[in-house]
This record gives sequence, structure tokens and C-alpha cells, in this order.
Amino acid sequence: MLKALIYKKNALWVLDQRLLPHREEWLCCSDATCVAEVIREMAVRGAPAIGVAAAYGYLLGARHLLAQGDALTPERLEPVFRLLAAARPTAVNLVWALDRMTRCLASVTDPDPELRLARLADEAHAIEREDVESNLLMGQHGVPLLEPGWWVLTHCNTGALATAGQGTALGVVRDAWSAGRIEGVYVDETRPWLQGARLTAWELAREQIPYRLICDSAAASVLASGRVGWVIVGADRIAANGDTANKIGTYALAVLARYHGVRFMVVAPRSTIDRDCVDGRSIEIEQRPADEVRSLAGRPVAPADAPVDNPAFDVTPAALIDAVVTEAGVVRRPDRAGIAGLFD
Amino acid sequence: MLKALIYKKNALWVLDQRLLPHREEWLCCSDATCVAEVIREMAVRGAPAIGVAAAYGYLLGARHLLAQGDALTPERLEPVFRLLAAARPTAVNLVWALDRMTRCLASVTDPDPELRLARLADEAHAIEREDVESNLLMGQHGVPLLEPGWWVLTHCNTGALATAGQGTALGVVRDAWSAGRIEGVYVDETRPWLQGARLTAWELAREQIPYRLICDSAAASVLASGRVGWVIVGADRIAANGDTANKIGTYALAVLARYHGVRFMVVAPRSTIDRDCVDGRSIEIEQRPADEVRSLAGRPVAPADAPVDNPAFDVTPAALIDAVVTEAGVVRRPDRAGIAGLFD
Repeated sequence: MLKALIYKKNALWVLDQRLLPHREEWLCCSDATCVAEVIREMAVRGAPAIGVAAAYGYLLGARHLLAQGDALTPERLEPVFRLLAAARPTAVNLVWALDRMTRCLASVTDPDPELRLARLADEAHAIEREDVESNLLMGQHGVPLLEPGWWVLTHCNTGALATAGQGTALGVVRDAWSAGRIEGVYVDETRPWLQGARLTAWELAREQIPYRLICDSAAASVLASGRVGWVIVGADRIAANGDTANKIGTYALAVLARYHGVRFMVVAPRSTIDRDCVDGRSIEIEQRPADEVRSLAGRPVAPADAPVDNPAFDVTPAALIDAVVTEAGVVRRPDRAGIAGLFD
Repeated sequence: MLKALIYKKNALWVLDQRLLPHREEWLCCSDATCVAEVIREMAVRGAPAIGVAAAYGYLLGARHLLAQGDALTPERLEPVFRLLAAARPTAVNLVWALDRMTRCLASVTDPDPELRLARLADEAHAIEREDVESNLLMGQHGVPLLEPGWWVLTHCNTGALATAGQGTALGVVRDAWSAGRIEGVYVDETRPWLQGARLTAWELAREQIPYRLICDSAAASVLASGRVGWVIVGADRIAANGDTANKIGTYALAVLARYHGVRFMVVAPRSTIDRDCVDGRSIEIEQRPADEVRSLAGRPVAPADAPVDNPAFDVTPAALIDAVVTEAGVVRRPDRAGIAGLFD
């Protein structure tokens, strides 16, 4: 199966997703600064993949300290934590993975730095392995919700390129196709980064799953056509009440799905749930550079000085979500109690 | 004021909108075949502009017949009619303008071909002049609907580039700004052709009207922000009951506007109304080439063989429209009776 993040020989190898589907090039990060950069510049993207990358970035930061003869403590690694945490503000998995690495380090009582580093390596590998396993569980939980005979519609990329495993929303799609539960997939191109056109279409073609690529603005017509049973998307951050931040355009799909009687599924690992976040209003929405809208791959598509609003995410209220699918099970009509129940 | 279509010296000069906003180049059409091609290839677009271009295309076809020593009759011009009418299937103004030219020719009893040609030239000029005037009337009718203090949101391009005058929806925006009735304009980039990013942004910048360019998928967030009072769009075809075909994405905006308590205005000349079309279900929706979605600004953005759905238009039911603004007045909550009343 496709892997877009590989840790080997003390370096994190990252498939540069900015060049897909035309070129497959790998970047090699041997320090935390490089990992922060590939996250910030979106060579790697997708909340779970960002979490796994950040864990390895923390590990590489620790290696660097060790090589300098420094002590390996959470305090000494604080600048590495901050560097990585600041790379993307909205994805909660980023800070979740860094917190796990920090707690792991704090829990080691033995002062031997080599042993401390080995424990950090184990923890990063565990974060990666758990992501692979949780993807499989999400597939198992999500597929039974789908009645056969319908197409689904998805947005952005939530597949093997966005995770360490088979994907979240796209993992459900993959398993649903294998199980004969869906007829095919409508794929939003997902401006401005075109993750749907560049990445999801590429993954689905590799898997020989039937799909139709559409402009984001054509989703309403597709939903009105009556062919689609579920909209299935991922999440970048889920608040304690179920409000969900995800790629810009997700909220529009949720409103349109409700209007057309189409159901709406969010698929994400529990690490995406921010229990300290009361509701969607307190989720910080990252504003990305104007040139992402003004141009594509260096080619201008608007006046060079056009004023632009370019929010990377929007927030879908829990009331518009029919099911949140996690590795720990499904919450139907999510609310505060349902989300809390995932952690019992 | 900006003119994108100029008839002079027996040729139609067309500002090639495919190259905007980066280059201003003019195409010169001296025959009907060329006019059909610039319509089909979208060097000129926008329903009213297409109508004006088609009228001049018919005139050029008549000139050609005359040069060959042929008689100028509707029958002899039938191939020219069909050629031009087939260039874009959805815009009703195209056939409306051609019908007017045909009726004009049929009404001339004098057999003198030079005189018949002169009458056709008068008719084409009249169609152009009436479009300019009707744009001004739409502005007068539309502006009073807007309460000061709000932004508006628009889709595609409905300005001077889409008409012979100041525009339909963008004409209302222009007059509203002059009258201090709006704070600014959110502009959908309008994939796949990016008429919003390339054309509307360019026109608004020329007029120094404040605007913010957004991805189509960000419109839902903008509407949820509470800053927008009206969504204002044009139309390619309006059925007798008020159902409106317009650029793909318009229907999504109408659903989203209703959900957020934002009002929805369609601005179009009466020539856009197809009284023979009972309702939106009988409007043919043009499917455009897959490569328009597979590439952006000429650069591939998806797998080269990605299967694509690329409808150029969608249909907004009359029930989601708060006002249809025409040169003959405003229909609030449009229905069959209200639309018919525009022709009394």
C-alpha cells in the first residue's frame, strides 16, 4: 500500500505532495526545522499525517540535542515543540502528537540519553502504527452505515497521503468499495490546493475505484441529482460538542447535504478531537497566503494585487453532521455527551 | 466605459477574455464562422454579450451572401442561424437575438439586397444599444432593494465584459457602490473558467470598488459571517416560472443564502426569459470539456485521464430567488404570474 511518510536511517522521507500527480519526488528531513518546513509548506498535509510527521520531527530534534551532548528533557526540547506546533495552527493532531512525545520523555526516569532517545523513537513508531490501525478500525465502523446502491461525495484528500495508513474518510470509501457498498465517488477538486483533483483522484485511480472529478461549485447539482447517499469527509479538529473544522468548503457541503436529504459523515481518529475546545467558535481558522488563490503553480489567475480572503478551513456545526466515525466507534447525531462517550 | 465588443469597418472586434487579466488582445471576425468560434471557445461570454455578438455574426453572414450575389432571405441565412445558434446551447439570448434578426429580415418587403442588409445592420445596432440601455434600467431597479451597510457576493462575471453595457448583476453592483448602498463585493473565483478571478476582479479594480476574491467553496463561510446582505447573480436562461439557469455554482449559493437568511437577486434582461420553457427541468445544461477541470490556467492539475463531470450551468428553483430584476422592473418572489407580468 501507498506510504507517503517513511522514517528510516535517522531521517524522515516525505513524498512531496505539492508535485503530485505529475511527479513523485521524496524530500529527506534529517532535522526538526526541515520537518516544520515540509508541514508549513504543505509537502505533507492531512491532520493525521501531520501528527506522525511532527512526532518524527520531535525525535529528530532530540537526536540533534543528543549529538550536541545536551540533556534530553522536555524543557530542552521546548523550542523544538514550539517550532513544530507553530507550523500549522488548526490541526490538533500536531499538538496532540507533540504532547505525547513530551509526556513519553517526561515519563522516563533513567537519565541515560541513548535510552531516552530510544523511548522517543518507540513512541513515534507507536503513533505511526496506531494511525495505521485506527484507519482500519474507522473503515470497519464506517462501512455498515452505507446502504448499497449509492455514490458518495468526498472533499479534499483524506487517504493514504493524509495519514500513515489507508486514510480516514477515504479509508471508509476504500473499504466500502471493496465491500460492494458504493457505486463510485464524486471528488471535489478542492480549491485552492486542489487536493481532490491532484491527490484523491490519483489515489482512487491507483485503487481502480470509479470516480468523477467535479469543481467544488458543482457539488450542489450532484447532490440534487439524487445519486449520492452520503457526503464523507475528514476533520482537522473536532470540538467537544462535535463541531468540526475541516478543509474550506466542508461546511457548504454539510448545508447542501442537509438541504437535499443526503447524509453527512465525518471520519477522524480520536486524536482529532480537542476536548478543551468547547465548540466551533473557539477554533482558530488559519488564513493562508493570498497567492494560493491568485495563482496556481506560479501562474497568475487573477489581478496580481487582488485582495483575497483565503481561510484554509471552515467549521461545520455538529447539528449538520449525521455521524462521526472514529477508531473507537460511531457517534450518531454528535453532541457533547456522544463525543465524550468515545473516551469512556 | 469598457467595451468588449466593437463592430466597425464590417467586422466584429472581440476583446479575447480568455487572456484577461494579463493581456488585452482583440480578435477580428469578418465572417459568421469566426463569430461562432469566438462564442464557442468563450473568447466572448456572458449571455447578453453572446446575443449581441450573434446578431453581428448574422449580419456578417448576410454580407457574405450579398457578396456572393445571393438573395438575402431568412431561408438563405438558415445555415448561418444554425451555425451561430449551436455555438452555446444554454444561453437563450443567442437564439433570441438570431430570431430578432430573422424577423427583421422577413419584415422587409423591398427586394433590394443593399437595403435589406442596411436593415439588418440597423437591427444589430439596435440590439446592442438596447442592451446598454437595459443595463442602466436594471441598475435603477436593483439598487433600491439594497439596504446600506452590507457587502454583496457575486459569482462569475456579469459586467461590461458580459454585456454590451455596464453589466447586469455587476451593473447593479456598480450603481449600488456609486449610490453608497454597499460596502464592497465578495467575488467567487468561479471555477473552472475563473471568470470571477480573471474578469470580475479586473473590472472591480478598474472601477475602484472594494472587493475580496474568494474560492467558490469559501462562500458558505462568508455568508455565515453575517456581513453579506444579498447574493447578486446574472442568468443564462430564465424559465416561465422563474427557475433560473446560470453559471455552475449559482444553485449552491442560492441554497446557502436561504440557509443563512441572505437574500438572493437575479439580474437579467427580459431577453433571458424563455417563455416557451415551462420550468427548469426542461433547460438543457451544457457539458463542457473535461480538460477545463483537469487543468487550470493551462496547467494540468489532475491525472490526465481523470473522468470529469463539467456542467457549465445549474438551475436555481424560483422558490430560492427573492427578486428577479429586469429592465422592465422587479419581480419579487418570482413565479409564473410574476414573470408573465414583465411582458404586459
